[in-house]
Formats: sequence, C-alpha cells, structure tokens
Amino acid sequence: MPYFDAASSAPLHPVARQALQASLDEGWADPARLYREGRRAGLLLDAAREAAAEAVGCRPDELVFTPSGTHAVHAGMSGVLSGRRRVGLGVTVSAVEHSSVLHAAAAHEAATGGAVTEVPVDRYGAVTPDTYAGALREDTALACLQSANHEVGTEQPVAEVAEACRSRGVPLLVDAAQSLGWGPVEGAWSLLTGSAHKWGGPGGVGLLAVRKGVRFAPRGPADERESGRSPGFPNIPAIVAAAASLRAVRAEAAAEAARLRALVDRIRARVPELVPDVEVVGHPEHRLPHLVTFSCLYVDGEALLHELDRADFSVSSGSSCTSSTLTPSHVLRAMGVLSEGNVRVSLPAGTPEAEVDRFLEVLPGVVSGVREKLGAPTGSGGPGAAAGADEAGGSLVVDALGRRCPIPVIELAKVFGEVPVGGTVTVLSDDEAARLDIPAWCEMRGQEYVGERPADHGVAYVVRRVS
Amino acid sequence: MPYFDAASSAPLHPVARQALQASLDEGWADPARLYREGRRAGLLLDAAREAAAEAVGCRPDELVFTPSGTHAVHAGMSGVLSGRRRVGLGVTVSAVEHSSVLHAAAAHEAATGGAVTEVPVDRYGAVTPDTYAGALREDTALACLQSANHEVGTEQPVAEVAEACRSRGVPLLVDAAQSLGWGPVEGAWSLLTGSAHKWGGPGGVGLLAVRKGVRFAPRGPADERESGRSPGFPNIPAIVAAAASLRAVRAEAAAEAARLRALVDRIRARVPELVPDVEVVGHPEHRLPHLVTFSCLYVDGEALLHELDRADFSVSSGSSCTSSTLTPSHVLRAMGVLSEGNVRVSLPAGTPEAEVDRFLEVLPGVVSGVREKLGAPTGSGGPGAAAGADEAGGSLVVDALGRRCPIPVIELAKVFGEVPVGGTVTVLSDDEAARLDIPAWCEMRGQEYVGERPADHGVAYVVRRVS
Repeated sequence: MPYFDAASSAPLHPVARQALQASLDEGWADPARLYREGRRAGLLLDAAREAAAEAVGCRPDELVFTPSGTHAVHAGMSGVLSGRRRVGLGVTVSAVEHSSVLHAAAAHEAATGGAVTEVPVDRYGAVTPDTYAGALREDTALACLQSANHEVGTEQPVAEVAEACRSRGVPLLVDAAQSLGWGPVEGAWSLLTGSAHKWGGPGGVGLLAVRKGVRFAPRGPADERESGRSPGFPNIPAIVAAAASLRAVRAEAAAEAARLRALVDRIRARVPELVPDVEVVGHPEHRLPHLVTFSCLYVDGEALLHELDRADFSVSSGSSCTSSTLTPSHVLRAMGVLSEGNVRVSLPAGTPEAEVDRFLEVLPGVVSGVREKLGAPTGSGGPGAAAGADEAGGSLVVDALGRRCPIPVIELAKVFGEVPVGGTVTVLSDDEAARLDIPAWCEMRGQEYVGERPADHGVAYVVRRVS
Repeated sequence: MPYFDAASSAPLHPVARQALQASLDEGWADPARLYREGRRAGLLLDAAREAAAEAVGCRPDELVFTPSGTHAVHAGMSGVLSGRRRVGLGVTVSAVEHSSVLHAAAAHEAATGGAVTEVPVDRYGAVTPDTYAGALREDTALACLQSANHEVGTEQPVAEVAEACRSRGVPLLVDAAQSLGWGPVEGAWSLLTGSAHKWGGPGGVGLLAVRKGVRFAPRGPADERESGRSPGFPNIPAIVAAAASLRAVRAEAAAEAARLRALVDRIRARVPELVPDVEVVGHPEHRLPHLVTFSCLYVDGEALLHELDRADFSVSSGSSCTSSTLTPSHVLRAMGVLSEGNVRVSLPAGTPEAEVDRFLEVLPGVVSGVREKLGAPTGSGGPGAAAGADEAGGSLVVDALGRRCPIPVIELAKVFGEVPVGGTVTVLSDDEAARLDIPAWCEMRGQEYVGERPADHGVAYVVRRVS
C-alpha cells in the first residue's frame, strides 16, 4: 500500500516505536518533582534534549520541546516579537512559508499593526538572498525563512539569508520542519523549529531552538516548564521517541537521500513523458531528496486524489478543489505555476523502487480517466484550424461563472481553436484558481495572456491566440 | 515503591498502554487527508472524541483535544474573553484555582487591563456560592471555578455557582483536571477542561469542552484543526489512549473511590494521633476520594520530602521551601492554614492498603528526625513556666531575618515560654511563609496573633501569650 505523503506525516519509525514503548514505564511522572519517579522522568527528558540539540546543532539549554511544530513556530515568533518590541514590529517572511508562519504573522499584524513583508519567490519557489535582504527594514524585529518548501521541495538559500540578517542585527527563524530529518540547517540562524512526525517521530512533539543572545520574551500565561517557553505537562515518552528517531533517520540520511533522489528524478523525468499537459514544479536540483510536485492541465485535483487512492496511492495536492477554502495553495500561487490537477509525491524513507514504478504505470490511466469524465480536450497539440469567430476581430467570450477549477481552463481550451490567430478568448470566472491557471495555461501552450479586468459577478481573463 | 502523588501525574493505566500500542499503526497520518491512512487516523480521532464527550457529558462537536490541560485552560479562557469582549473584560476566579487559570487571568489583565476578581475561600478551601455570585459584575466576561482543589482535595459547589453564573449570563469554565476521572461534573457549566495524565492517560492530551451557544473566538494564529480551537498536528495514539483510559477509570470509579476514601480517612484520623503538631487541611467530607493534605509544625518541607523519598514514598508539598519562588502555595495561603512541613498524599487507583499502613508507620519517625535536625521544640504541650522577659511588659524580640521557613516559627516557639502570660513575642522575618505560618501557629497553640507591622529589612509579627 504505497504511502507517498511523507511531507504531511511520516509513518512511525521502528526506533520511535521502540523508544516510546521503552519509556512508558518511566516517562509518566512530573519531571519537575524531586522524588524518584520525577527524577527518572527528568533524566529521560534531559537525555532527549541532549540528543535533539546535537542533531539540531545547538546547546541543550537552547532547545525546548513543544507540543507540535506549529506550537514551536508560534512560540518562537511571538517570543522574538515580544522581546524585540523596542526595535519595531515588522516581520519579514517568504511568500511560501508554511501556514503556521504566515498565520502567526497575520495574527501579529492584526493585534499590533506591525507590518508583514512578504518576500516574493521565483518560478521554482525560492527567494533570492538579495531580494530577501532588501526586504529587511529598520523596524524589522523578526525574519522567517523555511529551510525547504513543504509543497514543492525547493531548498531556500538559508545560509546566505542568515548572513544578511545577522549583518543587519535581525534574528532569523528557520522553519526546518521538512528538512530536519535529512540534516542540520547550516548558517547563522537565530531560531529553528522542527516537527517530529515529519521525520518518523510521534505526533505531539515539536522543537524550538533559540540561540543564546536572542532577545526572547515568552508571550501568554506564565508557565515555568521548558524554560518558560512551552507551557503544559510534557509527553516524555513521545519526546524520547522523537529524539531517538531523529538520531536514527540521521544515521540513514545520506544513503537514503541518494536512493530517494534517484527515484524522484525518475518521476520528474517520466511523468511529462507519460502524461500529456503536465508541469513539474519546484527546483530541479536544489530540492529535498524525497519530494516532487507536478500539476496536470484539465484535471480536478480532488478527483485525481480519489482515483489515486482507489489505486492504492496516497498523495496530497495543493489544488483549490481539494481544500475547504476553494483557493489554490499559496505556494503555487506565489510561484505563478499551474495549480489544477496538482499532485505532491513525498516518499517516506524505505520506499521500494517497485512502488514508484507502479505509480508511473498507474498515473497516465488515472489522469486520462479524470480528464475524460470532465470532457477535457484530448491531445497535447495546438488548436486545430480556427473556426469562424462570432464577433468582429475574431473574439469569443466563455461564461464559466459558477464553475470551479479545472472547468474554466477546460472551457477555454475547448473553444480556443475557434478564434483566428490574433483573436482573443475572454473567460468569465469567479473561481480563484482561474487567476493562476489561465496564465499558466498560456505559458504551457505558448499563447499570450493579455490580462484580467473586473466583470459582472467575477473576473474577465483575456487570452490572445498567437499561433 | 509507593507512589503517592497521583494528583501530579498518575502512572499510565494498563488500558491506556494497550490503546496506545494498538493505535500506533493507524494513528500517525494526518486525519484531515482524504486518503486511506488519513481516513483511518480520522476514524480513531472521531471515536476518541465520542468516548471522551460521553464521559464529559457533552456533544462530540463541543469537545476538542488540546496538547495538555494547561493548553485547554488557556484556550478556553482566551476564547471566551475574545468572544465576549463587548460584554466586558472582567474575569472572576476562585483564589485557589490551578496556576494555569490564575496565570492566564493575570496575562489577560496585563494585556487588556481587564480586572481579575478573586473569590476568597473558607478555611477548607471552598468558595461559597453566595460569595462567588456576589463577585460577578456587569463587565464579567468569564467565571472560572475548579471542580475540586488540586492541593487539598476540597470539592467546590460547582452546580450552585454554575446556576448563579447562568442566571447572570456569565459563562462558567470548570477546571475539572483533578476530578474528571472520578465522574462527570454536574451542573450548567459552559466550558470544561481536563488533563489525561491525571486519570492515567498519557501526557500530551488535554480536553476542552465548549457548550453550544457560548460566544467563543479562538485567539492566536488561525489553524483549522480541532474546530479552530487547538492548533498543531494531533498525537492521535495518545488521544485514543486518553479516551480509552478515561472510560476504563470511570468503570472502576465508584468502587475505587470508596476503597481509597477509607484509606484517606485512615490517614486523616491517624496522622494527628501519630505525629504531634500536625494540621490536616481541606474539607473533611466534600473532597476528592484519594487526596489528603496535612502540614507539620517545625518541619522543612523539602527535607521532609527528601526523607520520605529515601523511605520510598513519593509525595508532594505546597511548602515554600520546596518551590523555586520561596513562597508558600497560593492555595494554603488563601485558606489561611499552616504551610510549613506540608505534605500532599494523593493515592493512585489500585494503591494497596499495606502501602498506606507502612506510610503511617514511617511518617512519625521521619517527621521527628527532620525536627531534631532543625532543633525544633519537642513535645506538643504548652510553653513551660515563663522565664523573665528582657523588656518592660514582658516582651521579647526574635530576629529571624534571613532565615527561611520553618526557622522563624521554630525560633518563636523556642522563646515563647520565656514571656509571661500577657506578654508578647515579636518575630522579625523576611520570609514570605512567616505571614502564613505565624498566625497558623497561634491558632494551633491557642495563642493570640496580634498582627504585623513593617520593620527594617522585613516584617515584625507580634504574638501575645494568653495561656
């Protein structure tokens, strides 16, 4: 049963399971108590902290455990923003950070008025160090940059950005949730966060490292546990399991990364050959070893996931049609790439080659099946001979109001052959995904995206036929 | 090895262990995902929610899981305070709430200026419904009352207070951390919080129930998990174990409560017979079945815990000398009872009678050993024939500045026999515990506590000999 969504959550590592079971007998007491059971629990917690700190590359007293990676991000950001209030209230983030970072920044802005500066990314999803450095201002209290993107796998230039931040005296928080199992984060970061269930540890454990010297003032109700930085009674067996499995995956990381990278390279190369009208997104080289993302024109992401699940493959998607908000992933949007029919494949450690091969066998039929049901245009060639247009100048209007992704793009493609070269098709749509997917369609098809303008009940997207 | 600190954290219940292990294989995936592994994790989470809701006495969609009881309290309080901001910013709490409640109230006051009203308690640690009702004001947005006190075991009149709150339209949050394993909380409460490791579940799981109709606006960064009320990836195996063990302890609760109540009654009756100068605190009847607290005059709490630990008994203490803050427990202070030599015994389910009997055998020798080392007065009789006093009117001054609990009280007791009836002893002390323990000593000895006044480098506490 191939599970290809390690970037959401990895199956429990055997070492995590062993460590969890081994510490259930001694890890239940309050580690702050002076008696025997408390001391034993405290020793387990200390040992886990030392192991985790070594893997992170910090001192044990710089690292606290939190109930999740999300809590680590929230506590890290709010602690710096409170501690550096005198400097200012500004926050700089990349446009493709995890939602925990972006939502914390938005909450900060709403509560304090501190401005959030989003650093744009290139078409691969990466910031450039210069652009990032240019977004740091006098009143920037905190900068945030992920080590690698969770949706497309692109690695960020963390060391260069950290250096730029250091030279301006701005602490950089690195969300290392996706990469920490593969290795430590290089460079002069100030804070680092991680999430155990991403590397095969249990849920319920995050970590937050704060370098000595960073001004940090925990926000929220006082609680003396974890240096005052993470309230609540800790789940010590889970923490022990998290630290043990981080050590274990690190020991296997170099060999497993090389093996998975080869499998991912195969997917990156073969999918566009096997499936027409596909865009592979994310950086081809500077990327996580186990993760690849592609989008398929004329495909409903939810239907695609459903069919892949029926074929026993578990993957995730950044398409709007699989989210409750009806908007495409903010990552794909920031990259300006196609969002419809989006599939993220993230291989857990140990994925057999044969599962990847079977995925490549199954995928083409699944995609064509979904396209067929939607009545999508077939063949990847250009439009046929232009039919007569019904307006002066050879223009057509397609009314796709009320229709969701990928229908507006399908309707566009269906009629596109009917306008002469030089003519335009205008798509009326009230679907958020159209704003991303119609320009992406033009790019893939080599046609000209003219632009958008407001229209009754939606937006009019204009495309000109150039070939 | 008798562990008598269940009120801090209970050993993992066998059912929790089984449920945890049984759900490790299926509980690691993201329950929000549509694929097979996600659906399985989601089913486990749904089932756990239903079981927990049934035990709490609410609808499943009224209950969310949090990473700890502390998180449940923080989220519950901040959610109501945000949601009812238009009503006002006032918070009413009992003076003996858990620190998570008091610290959240203090943080709210610091951030918003909303006043915190503390409802005093009687000498048993209970509020009276009338006093509580009288503390509700026009601008009270939230009221908080524990179901039973965590340090002395006294049950609060929750149903009556809930009714008073209901009639005034103020939502009542009940911190049920100490009682939820024994049974549901009766009455028209609006919010309820609990903590799994108190009933034999794993650490890392709390629960928050919010009745339909309560205005609730989650504070902090947006996160769609757990109805937007508890951020972060959940530890589903731990949640499953928490719910399963709650069910299991409830099935045994009535019989086990009766059995432990008898053992606690034995401690309550025998300790004052076996150990001189002891005050048993907390309500004699309206109390948790498994918890008893007493304080020993002339005893250093930390030394007492240390000696009990050497004798294999794990207990906790609200004495100032065992805390990092050098202040006695706020609960004992609010009750106005002796804090020195404080011992809380809380029996885990299944505690054998023989362990309690051995505790009663060991305790007198341990207490007298600690007293001997401190040079405490021996014998519980009144003072001997009064010695000549060194001032007019038969008064003495004892300088205990710089000396910590229990030394100021020991010094008082040592010289007390030297003043004539009608004379006074003035104790100079800069130890916070003296403010509580000197009046408590007077009460226990039947002497008159005259009062305190400021003095150089500390406070002067005046005691008059009346017999």
